[in-house]
Amino acid sequence: MNTMIYLDNAATTYPKPDSVYQVMDDANRNLAVNSGRGSYKVAREATELISDVRSKLLELVHGVNGEKAVITTSATNSLQIILHGIRFEKGDVVYVSPYEHNAVARNLEVLRKYKGIEIEEIPLVEESLDIDLDKFKYMMTRKPAKCVCCTHVSNVTGYILPVKEIFEMSHGCGAVNILDASQSFGLLEIDAKSSNADFIVFAGHKTLYGPFGASGFIDVNGIELESVLAGGTGSNSTNLDMPQESPNRYEAGSTNIIALAGLNEALRVLDQAGNYSHEKELTNYLVDKLRDIDGVTLYLPDDVEKHIGVVSFNVEGYTSEEVGMILDEDYDIAVRTGYHCAPYIHKYIKDKDTLGTVRIGLGLFNTKYEIDVLVEAVREI
Amino acid sequence: MNTMIYLDNAATTYPKPDSVYQVMDDANRNLAVNSGRGSYKVAREATELISDVRSKLLELVHGVNGEKAVITTSATNSLQIILHGIRFEKGDVVYVSPYEHNAVARNLEVLRKYKGIEIEEIPLVEESLDIDLDKFKYMMTRKPAKCVCCTHVSNVTGYILPVKEIFEMSHGCGAVNILDASQSFGLLEIDAKSSNADFIVFAGHKTLYGPFGASGFIDVNGIELESVLAGGTGSNSTNLDMPQESPNRYEAGSTNIIALAGLNEALRVLDQAGNYSHEKELTNYLVDKLRDIDGVTLYLPDDVEKHIGVVSFNVEGYTSEEVGMILDEDYDIAVRTGYHCAPYIHKYIKDKDTLGTVRIGLGLFNTKYEIDVLVEAVREI
Repeated sequence: MNTMIYLDNAATTYPKPDSVYQVMDDANRNLAVNSGRGSYKVAREATELISDVRSKLLELVHGVNGEKAVITTSATNSLQIILHGIRFEKGDVVYVSPYEHNAVARNLEVLRKYKGIEIEEIPLVEESLDIDLDKFKYMMTRKPAKCVCCTHVSNVTGYILPVKEIFEMSHGCGAVNILDASQSFGLLEIDAKSSNADFIVFAGHKTLYGPFGASGFIDVNGIELESVLAGGTGSNSTNLDMPQESPNRYEAGSTNIIALAGLNEALRVLDQAGNYSHEKELTNYLVDKLRDIDGVTLYLPDDVEKHIGVVSFNVEGYTSEEVGMILDEDYDIAVRTGYHCAPYIHKYIKDKDTLGTVRIGLGLFNTKYEIDVLVEAVREI
Repeated sequence: MNTMIYLDNAATTYPKPDSVYQVMDDANRNLAVNSGRGSYKVAREATELISDVRSKLLELVHGVNGEKAVITTSATNSLQIILHGIRFEKGDVVYVSPYEHNAVARNLEVLRKYKGIEIEEIPLVEESLDIDLDKFKYMMTRKPAKCVCCTHVSNVTGYILPVKEIFEMSHGCGAVNILDASQSFGLLEIDAKSSNADFIVFAGHKTLYGPFGASGFIDVNGIELESVLAGGTGSNSTNLDMPQESPNRYEAGSTNIIALAGLNEALRVLDQAGNYSHEKELTNYLVDKLRDIDGVTLYLPDDVEKHIGVVSFNVEGYTSEEVGMILDEDYDIAVRTGYHCAPYIHKYIKDKDTLGTVRIGLGLFNTKYEIDVLVEAVREI
């Protein structure tokens, strides 16, 4: 374990700050009760911790206008709650960026099949793989959006999407804007109000350096969703409807207080600006080195400023999986290979011959030395 | 903390076996990667652990006939996946026991509103609060069930429901049978095949003594549900549909490997028969003592053999919450008060004047001494 070079931070960041582990072990031993509306001290302590996490999350996105922080078990769970909660009608048009994850795409496919929504892809500029804002604008005049789903950072190429501009257009026509910030929350600056997003989804175990099991979304404008994914809330038990108010309306079942304690600590020690500089520096360093190697194809946005954390590539003559296996077996380097749960983007980046890409996901605890080892390994392949 | 007497084990068992904490801390530090279909060693180790958990779960229910163990984040999440996945049509009748939790009831209410299902309560014998099997049989001849939801043990009264008999009847007419074993899995003997259940839901953090975040259900007969709650599965990424096969079909998003490591250890050290004897002995001991106190009303099944783990009561002249507060503040005893997320049963047990019940949830680590302290406290109120 100790010698492994971990470069799969886009799947989940690892390791976490040591204090996150300590706090979780402590919570496990001393706080792991069912918060609910507890009639005893530890249950109330657990409830306070949840409220503390909400405050920190809102602070991070400058949420001072009544935004709510909803706690869920994963970014996928957040997207299920939001997407299945929108009151879609047959024929409603949902725009997605081609960079979306299956957490968005597969739920929309369910809604297409059973509710008859239409799914439209926001177009890209073929050469740069940038979002084509002009074409999107034109499409929107012909088919206005009921909803727009956009990831902030591509988990395949590391491209930072112009989400503010996209959402500004769709906001104008009254669409529900969903920002998937799984790869950016805690890394890139997000201002809830000026983002033009209605819902901002985050994954606690990724760029926030918390554990699995503590994720959620920011409910920016209080758009009321149907609470389709229902269950006990510890409140108003004899009412068969979920509570009216956000965030409780969307939080069914026991809260994972251990994971939340970890997220709380992760948020406490988070240095967003510092993490950004470190990751940006490593990203540039890695890209520069990989560019120098013959036979390596990189999948990058044109503009280096629109790129962070994720670097996808392939090596001539190998499938992505073969490269991943060599890196693992011969060098103890952990990377991810394949299609990365992103169904749409591969027709643009044309990586089907290699069965996807080799993906490097950089994180807070990676070093230039580790990148040197990786680059040397790739050179030797 | 150390002096607290914890009697809220029906909400979540606490503490857990010490080795569960140790294994989780270790997993957090050394295994907390994204299992997926990993191309590196630790990811494969994580995948093996998941498969290990599945085997242990199936072993517990004697699943040797192709049953599948599906991993979810909570029992509520399991019920959402199952209930929203059934291909209901307008007018379909779903029978529920009056002992159901809101994890069942509120999701059915959503389906009633949006899909037009009909919800029927299985009747009780008024005096004993037992399921009235004869009446149920009669009702079924008039309105056959499309689906039957039944909890194994009431989280309000500790009543053990005759689930096998109920499901035998509904099985005959082709209904989908859902057993909510949140309060019994790992405590009462469950045999997957002879239970007549199609889906058996469990909560890892309750009678299994695992942590929050690792729950699931046993897919007994492979009835294919719509995979409404979709997301990434790390497999077949360019396919917009969830995989065809159970369990993967129902498992969207990153697996909480830390919680699963805890559940794996909890399952390893689980002594179902031992836990049952201990809890049954404590339950009887508590009931006998509380029966002796004037002004205490108990909410119990007639037959002591149909009862385990949960004891609900009220004290004359006090609401349940007042009793809970006194127990907490003056005696450092943690109990739950109110309606316990069970919406239907209160019209039968008639506890609305006291705003629900004071609920004692017994667990593996409770002692007769703790019960003596509780009983003395109740006597003093």
